[in-house]
Amino acid sequence: MRNVQQKLRIARGEEPAELLFKNANLVNVLSGEIHPANVAVADGRVIGWGDYSAHEEIDLQGAYLAPSLIDGHFHVESSMLTMPEFARAVAPHGTGTVVIDPHEYANVLGLDGIRYVLESSKNLPVDFFIMLPSCVPATPLETAGAQLTAGDLKLMIADERIAGIAELMNYPGVYLGLDSELSKIEAGKGKNIDGHAPGLTGRNLNAYVLAGVRSDHESTELSEAREKLRLGMHMLLREGSTERNLATLAPLVTPQNAANCSFATDDKLAGDLVHEGHIDHCVRVAIRMGIPPVTAFQIASINTARHYRLRNYGAIAPRFWADLIVFDDPGHFQVRQTYKKGKLVAEDGKFVGVLPGIVSQPRSTMNLSYRAPEDFRVAAPSRSGAKIRVIEIIPNQIVTRQAIEAPKLGQGEVLPDITRDVLKLVVVERHHATGNVGVGFVRGFKLRDGALGSTVAHDAHNVVVVGTNDTDIRIAIERLTKLQGGQVAVANSSIKAELPLPIAGLVSDQPLEEVMAQIQKLNAAAHELGCDLDAPFMTLSFLSLSPIPELKLTDQGLVDAAHLNKTELFVQKT
Amino acid sequence: MRNVQQKLRIARGEEPAELLFKNANLVNVLSGEIHPANVAVADGRVIGWGDYSAHEEIDLQGAYLAPSLIDGHFHVESSMLTMPEFARAVAPHGTGTVVIDPHEYANVLGLDGIRYVLESSKNLPVDFFIMLPSCVPATPLETAGAQLTAGDLKLMIADERIAGIAELMNYPGVYLGLDSELSKIEAGKGKNIDGHAPGLTGRNLNAYVLAGVRSDHESTELSEAREKLRLGMHMLLREGSTERNLATLAPLVTPQNAANCSFATDDKLAGDLVHEGHIDHCVRVAIRMGIPPVTAFQIASINTARHYRLRNYGAIAPRFWADLIVFDDPGHFQVRQTYKKGKLVAEDGKFVGVLPGIVSQPRSTMNLSYRAPEDFRVAAPSRSGAKIRVIEIIPNQIVTRQAIEAPKLGQGEVLPDITRDVLKLVVVERHHATGNVGVGFVRGFKLRDGALGSTVAHDAHNVVVVGTNDTDIRIAIERLTKLQGGQVAVANSSIKAELPLPIAGLVSDQPLEEVMAQIQKLNAAAHELGCDLDAPFMTLSFLSLSPIPELKLTDQGLVDAAHLNKTELFVQKT
Repeated sequence: MRNVQQKLRIARGEEPAELLFKNANLVNVLSGEIHPANVAVADGRVIGWGDYSAHEEIDLQGAYLAPSLIDGHFHVESSMLTMPEFARAVAPHGTGTVVIDPHEYANVLGLDGIRYVLESSKNLPVDFFIMLPSCVPATPLETAGAQLTAGDLKLMIADERIAGIAELMNYPGVYLGLDSELSKIEAGKGKNIDGHAPGLTGRNLNAYVLAGVRSDHESTELSEAREKLRLGMHMLLREGSTERNLATLAPLVTPQNAANCSFATDDKLAGDLVHEGHIDHCVRVAIRMGIPPVTAFQIASINTARHYRLRNYGAIAPRFWADLIVFDDPGHFQVRQTYKKGKLVAEDGKFVGVLPGIVSQPRSTMNLSYRAPEDFRVAAPSRSGAKIRVIEIIPNQIVTRQAIEAPKLGQGEVLPDITRDVLKLVVVERHHATGNVGVGFVRGFKLRDGALGSTVAHDAHNVVVVGTNDTDIRIAIERLTKLQGGQVAVANSSIKAELPLPIAGLVSDQPLEEVMAQIQKLNAAAHELGCDLDAPFMTLSFLSLSPIPELKLTDQGLVDAAHLNKTELFVQKT
Repeated sequence: MRNVQQKLRIARGEEPAELLFKNANLVNVLSGEIHPANVAVADGRVIGWGDYSAHEEIDLQGAYLAPSLIDGHFHVESSMLTMPEFARAVAPHGTGTVVIDPHEYANVLGLDGIRYVLESSKNLPVDFFIMLPSCVPATPLETAGAQLTAGDLKLMIADERIAGIAELMNYPGVYLGLDSELSKIEAGKGKNIDGHAPGLTGRNLNAYVLAGVRSDHESTELSEAREKLRLGMHMLLREGSTERNLATLAPLVTPQNAANCSFATDDKLAGDLVHEGHIDHCVRVAIRMGIPPVTAFQIASINTARHYRLRNYGAIAPRFWADLIVFDDPGHFQVRQTYKKGKLVAEDGKFVGVLPGIVSQPRSTMNLSYRAPEDFRVAAPSRSGAKIRVIEIIPNQIVTRQAIEAPKLGQGEVLPDITRDVLKLVVVERHHATGNVGVGFVRGFKLRDGALGSTVAHDAHNVVVVGTNDTDIRIAIERLTKLQGGQVAVANSSIKAELPLPIAGLVSDQPLEEVMAQIQKLNAAAHELGCDLDAPFMTLSFLSLSPIPELKLTDQGLVDAAHLNKTELFVQKT
């Protein structure tokens, strides 16, 4: 207890502290007020406030000192950054702690993916707590890299950085009481159980909560969020790159229920994190929507720490980690400095901390088996006048529509039709060399030439390529294999731009700035080929997501996602 | 999972619930509002609300339905009732759960006392969670029945009904970092650590909190409570029989910090519990002091459940125990019905529940060794003009003053002096037959005759007797021994009234009504002997409490409690 003794001596004032923040306006999320304080720090912890001496003194001259911000639910893979590079991106925005669900890593690598996340997220300027992915694979209609049972989850649940079981997306399975789902809840007993039940209401929602689900981050309507909050679900107010629900849900929050609210981003791109911000952006939106600043900071810190039982995180008081942010004006909230365990890690938007050495990457995950071009060919229908199902993209949404079109025929096969924007979509299984190849057609990319390919393809993350011709489709797949995963734009048999994602085919091994530059070039290349979508590769990555309506394509073929059935390209004559 | 499956079927509406509260105004402590609901209950749990059918329907016609009330810190021995009788006393007041510190049982019986409490508090209409007493004995200046080390506490900490380590009263020991105290905190790791540090402030308070102490219930001043709350201590707002701090502290509470506040009674007599109330009384005081009703109910339920991690307690929502109260008017809050796990246990002030069979009592704790009257005699001083220290009672306070008086001499000894109200006080060790007898003098009882004796004598609970003569003192001790502990009023060698407390010498084995009647007779007898104190036996019971200033008497002799030293009856000439 030597270390404890020294900290107590410092607290009693018998030894100087390491660091003293003088003349702070302390955002006290425990007493729900802002009050002046001189805050002493030692050994990474807050020691107390009052009349202290210290080896280093920082006169804040009335600036605000608040606890670092906490994200309650985030898929770090959505940034396509390694854990250290993600930390480097968000520390300047005041993020101190993130609760992550490594759902994509787990779908590709199983428990190895979770172990990689645990190991590569140690000793960083941001602390990570991990929820164990509960839906691997998401559905039986796609071939993922791994399968996780309740037994697998139990193997890891005791780790002190594991905060519980991640979003139970199979919500009918939960409220219907399937053993497979209830046993996952049971595996998380004593820790947290996150929910995912968009639009679920009434008695089935009661059953979902009764089964043990404790949170929600999928509410998009105020009434939906109110029903869930009343039932005791912790409300993760989401504001990500595409899912922007905070302004809609803000009127729900009162000081009397704010303890049951947190901020979350769910998915946010590297560029958005850097330029718009992270949880600091949520605080700004919340204050703009009329939530009192102290309440907004509570939602951004202690409430999340308590919900996920993050011991000694989320407040400034003795025993808490000295995870602190300095800012000048709650009305125009911009983080000026970020401290992690008492060390300055970011200042004026720049990361100034130290990153540990790189953890070795997981094994290659590109294990394909296919025959080109035979596997990509769609034989013309024997019956004349037959029509095909086409996936129709709705810009900036992950749901799609199904369109019925006459096929363009030639050389005995169904061809892409650039004039009607009906392009070929190919999904090749990449985990087990099963030889599974799904082929379909999609409208919305507007490519006049070439192909776009990605190994980020929710949730199984097989290779997905959209193209105007089979040659460029093949070249895209070959390039992605060579890169060990990534995203690529191809035209006229040559590579126009690429983003290598050698870590599980999901994440770059490059620095933040390089990743952002590559993404920009990639999008520019796609736009040059005719695509006018804001985020062509993100749109592409959701075309395999079989649980989300209406029509999707996986390695197993076309999926009627609204009914969770496989379906056929050719519409049956009725 | 069969039971789970059935509850899920009920939640989905496929089977009727057991009980449905129709047309309730639900006090929703999770969403911080009151809203209409039809609440379904089955298998002791809340299933949900909405359109349900049930075997039994209760139309509340707009009456309020709130979660049962929770006491965050209580010494059940202060009621002198067994666990079932205490439950019977408080269930009509809406109490559903009590966090108790069996400090007195432990000082008499050690771990056996805690085990007895655990066993005798099972399957009652009130649920009990137990904090492990951390100060047994309270000081080395008195001889308790047992000694509990951190190792002893570790033996029991894992029990799911053990909520942590009870109030660390040796607060200097904590902030000075004594291994004995820090190891008790360590023993409670992962559970709660309750504090007790009246008046502690500044840097030493920082150190006390830094060491791991998480709550306070001793604040008597608003500024003291504010400092502690800001430092992250959970604030137990106390309103007991004598310690009445709620009205003083109520202005501290805001909706933005109320999550860190609970109600507690600490010590409350049976009669006060029955006539004034329990946590319902706290709710009334809080609302009268201007705390919004929903906030008051949050403080009385979910906040305490969360702080002590009482899983599934403290709210009305799916998965929570159906611990419910019905009342008609938050402005005039009176509990009309109390339900425990879906069963009606009290109505209109009457207990209507079922109590389980009596758990067998602990072994006898009356193990005295003394010689009468020799041990009670105080030899006259050899030096003429010598003066004696007299304990001076301050009515309704546990602190005393020291008075210096000339002794009344006769027959070669110091005699009680009724004319100056200087009576003899005797403490006889009762646990280990050590033969320890402490003798002193006390002012404030105003007995003109006889003696009052008690085996309730904080914190070691030896036999304490105040008397006008040695014969009645001896008879009181003999009677208490025969009763296996209790309280007794003696005069002219005969018993005037008595309250047998055969359970550890602390608690009656009789029903609530009988205990209240006996206490009334006992107080009447004391008053008849000349005493004008409100609670003569409670006053008597605190005269041995060695940590509380100024002058006390234990089995080891007079104690200068302000300096935690032994002292002498005769004042040294200076």
